[in-house]
Amino acid sequence: MRAYNFSAGPSMLFEDTLKETQDNMLSYKDSGLCVAEMSHRSKDYSEIHTEFITTLKELMKISDDYDVLLLQGGASQQFDAVPLNLIKKGKADYVITGHWSERAYSQALPHGDIAAVASSKQAVFTYIPELPASIFRDGTDYVHITTNNTIYGTKYTKLPDTKAPLVADMSSNILSEVIDVGKFGLIYAGAQKNIGPAGLTVVIIRKDLITKDLPNCPKMLNYYTQSSADSLFNTPPCLAVYMSMLNLRYLKKLGGISAIQKINEEKAGLLYDFIDNSAFYVNNVNKKDRSLMNIPFLSPNGDLDKKFIKEAEAQNLLTLAGHKTVGGMRASVYNAMPIEGVKKLIAFMKKFELENK
Amino acid sequence: MRAYNFSAGPSMLFEDTLKETQDNMLSYKDSGLCVAEMSHRSKDYSEIHTEFITTLKELMKISDDYDVLLLQGGASQQFDAVPLNLIKKGKADYVITGHWSERAYSQALPHGDIAAVASSKQAVFTYIPELPASIFRDGTDYVHITTNNTIYGTKYTKLPDTKAPLVADMSSNILSEVIDVGKFGLIYAGAQKNIGPAGLTVVIIRKDLITKDLPNCPKMLNYYTQSSADSLFNTPPCLAVYMSMLNLRYLKKLGGISAIQKINEEKAGLLYDFIDNSAFYVNNVNKKDRSLMNIPFLSPNGDLDKKFIKEAEAQNLLTLAGHKTVGGMRASVYNAMPIEGVKKLIAFMKKFELENK
Repeated sequence: MRAYNFSAGPSMLFEDTLKETQDNMLSYKDSGLCVAEMSHRSKDYSEIHTEFITTLKELMKISDDYDVLLLQGGASQQFDAVPLNLIKKGKADYVITGHWSERAYSQALPHGDIAAVASSKQAVFTYIPELPASIFRDGTDYVHITTNNTIYGTKYTKLPDTKAPLVADMSSNILSEVIDVGKFGLIYAGAQKNIGPAGLTVVIIRKDLITKDLPNCPKMLNYYTQSSADSLFNTPPCLAVYMSMLNLRYLKKLGGISAIQKINEEKAGLLYDFIDNSAFYVNNVNKKDRSLMNIPFLSPNGDLDKKFIKEAEAQNLLTLAGHKTVGGMRASVYNAMPIEGVKKLIAFMKKFELENK
Repeated sequence: MRAYNFSAGPSMLFEDTLKETQDNMLSYKDSGLCVAEMSHRSKDYSEIHTEFITTLKELMKISDDYDVLLLQGGASQQFDAVPLNLIKKGKADYVITGHWSERAYSQALPHGDIAAVASSKQAVFTYIPELPASIFRDGTDYVHITTNNTIYGTKYTKLPDTKAPLVADMSSNILSEVIDVGKFGLIYAGAQKNIGPAGLTVVIIRKDLITKDLPNCPKMLNYYTQSSADSLFNTPPCLAVYMSMLNLRYLKKLGGISAIQKINEEKAGLLYDFIDNSAFYVNNVNKKDRSLMNIPFLSPNGDLDKKFIKEAEAQNLLTLAGHKTVGGMRASVYNAMPIEGVKKLIAFMKKFELENK
């Protein structure tokens, strides 16, 4: 039996993706080979690779001003690559809205004059700070934001107006709602939430931000290396690209990002409404900044939280523990979490409340 | 029907690995989750991760003086990471035995005083140069070699004596024959030949070569980052680690590396003997330096080579084209190529010779 997995990542994949991968595991399309066994220069793999890029561009309406790069190393590696590639004039601004933006900021520090221009840390990251144009410095190479914050359950509902190119870590909400790619200079995302299996990292970069000669940037971190080779400079993580492509194909069949956004709003809406109408559970996030993807909540005390997580697990509602830095519970409801999973969680929450209030 | 895939990489996986992955695709061990959907902090994934490292250490007899790191980015990323981590005194020596050692060398150039101390380029890399201790410079941080050369079909049968730590790109022959890890300071290998699916890179490093503070090394390329976090600093490529672990488990069941070495010697022996006794096919590699893994050969002319590759494909003997830089054919016979595949190839070669001589 399949479980409902509320993990913050790696997280659920569409069942269609898993089934098709399973069917093709020993022989993809009568080739006699698993995709993981194919030369990355083969016709079959090339088609998969191209379909991934084409479908992503179509779904996100990415113009030809941008390159889509298929990389490795996770968003954490982009915390290095972004400053190493984009810092030319010498400085960049970072907005601190949680653990991951702190990590991005601290990894950028050795690479230039890096400023944390706004932060909601003093309020345990329960909101997204106001970002008037005046807080950004002049002459920066870019402004970095984290569009969704998995641990604290917040997201940007309005993008800041910046003179410098806007760079976003979109790992935890890419493909979950319609965004205007044209507002960004660079978007990066680890695959393991809404794209596919861990091991693939997607970078969407405005072509004019790619620079061939970067004396301080290792070749494999320079975006030019993969951009000039169609992301086939070296062997890509072929199986992860294949499974991610199947996810994108499924998303397209479903009606694209606007269709999944409606479903995501319905899923998150059900859960937030239930919590807000409960005297037992609480979500401490500023309402207007609430994430569609990660919904943290607390029961009346830590012992009940532990009991909740354990009993939920017995009901096949998995990985509901909040991040260790905030405790409580967290339901991550990425694209592949079916609405039935959310309904089952709410039913369990009701029952648990009745039994423990 | 499964094909015999002679690709230089990505290449065949053990059928047991594919079948077990297939069986567990929608639910690993009744968890209700694919391994690709699990939190990398979960108990199930932790066990897989640990079994990979433990089994690799056991198979390769890796002592506790070494760390095993599970990384991403391929051997190509190690071409940057090795000099960025190991160059302290300022210089390193490289031995040039093919395309990949040239790439390793050229990526190292920006990072210090890098010398190509020996090369077989003038003879199209058909042999491994003699490496007397006198050719290595004093005061280097390491000496870099490529133990097997996929394109040219050569391998080291004797390791050089070096004062500086020996660093080896072992991507194309790791796990294929018994080696003494204690002779190396660092071994690295992309997974996609003898370890598992592309997207995983293994580094085996002597612990004293790991340095925490490296001002010029991006955090994600510093070996300390993953070494201090058991290779769980960020999300690893969980599915690739799982499938690789299954490969290692299978290898252990088979009797370990000495057992697979015997099989590999038998497979390569059959093919070399057939070629050497043929007046139609030729292998130009210096006999004592012949690879166990990659066996290039030529028919009497380029047109026949093309015909050979096409007709072999129709017999489900796939990806036999030689690398574009050398032409002809190349049979890559990594660990997971069954001896039946080699026998079928030889039978086809015989028939093709009769029909075309």
